Amino acid sequence: MPRPPAPPAALMASPDDTEAQFYEALQTGDLERLMAVWADDEDVACVHPGGPRLVGHGAIRAAFEALFGHGAVDARPAQVRRLVTETTAIHHVLERVRVGGEDGPRDGFVLATNVYLKTPLGWRLALHHASPGSPHELQEIVDAPSTLH
Amino acid sequence: MPRPPAPPAALMASPDDTEAQFYEALQTGDLERLMAVWADDEDVACVHPGGPRLVGHGAIRAAFEALFGHGAVDARPAQVRRLVTETTAIHHVLERVRVGGEDGPRDGFVLATNVYLKTPLGWRLALHHASPGSPHELQEIVDAPSTLH
Repeated sequence: MPRPPAPPAALMASPDDTEAQFYEALQTGDLERLMAVWADDEDVACVHPGGPRLVGHGAIRAAFEALFGHGAVDARPAQVRRLVTETTAIHHVLERVRVGGEDGPRDGFVLATNVYLKTPLGWRLALHHASPGSPHELQEIVDAPSTLH
Repeated sequence: MPRPPAPPAALMASPDDTEAQFYEALQTGDLERLMAVWADDEDVACVHPGGPRLVGHGAIRAAFEALFGHGAVDARPAQVRRLVTETTAIHHVLERVRVGGEDGPRDGFVLATNVYLKTPLGWRLALHHASPGSPHELQEIVDAPSTLH
């Protein structure tokens, strides 16, 4: 059977499910799948690295459509930290982004905050705030007790 | 009576209260007051513009202590957008930051996401993610319906 372009929202049964769909949609340049992860709220917001604040589905869709005009985005989440309550999940994600260049592909890093809300239609993305990371991978400073014990 | 260094947490009765205390603490360089707004969770996280991900109270305190070593931070929140559930408040804030320079003070802009959680001790900050804004004030793109109607 052909695979449907976007899975039913009910499949977004956990924040991790929804996050996986978001990054898969980026990696495949699938605009409809990407837009399906957002919460049904006019104040959903998105900040791309160095970009303005985008508010609402229309503004967010237009920006991703322009982005995908240059091709899919090879962004892979790593070092995810989670703060989860019954109805909200805050994920801090280090994204490794592969960018093509004249000298071949290079990896860059982006720091992102993703906030998911539990809705009747599953966990949905309410906020994506991404900002430029350092050129080096080590860009996290954690309290000593967490690293020593 | 002398003013106590940090008001009781019970005063943080709304996300706006807590946000006000956060920015007042920045503006006065009051480290204890600033640290009192954070949630009691080892995964609280903070990203300063262009900086690494700081996780935990110790790492966050050390970074603010270093920042205040250069003086207080004249950051004023503006254009706050709120996404609020029963237990979580997501604020997107445009910060106007006044920076001293050889030619006199100049305003810069920062885009910040602040996430507050409702705890038994009031609304507390769980995440502050700030990234460099554009040099111009207009850095928000909103869906047409919100601006036209």
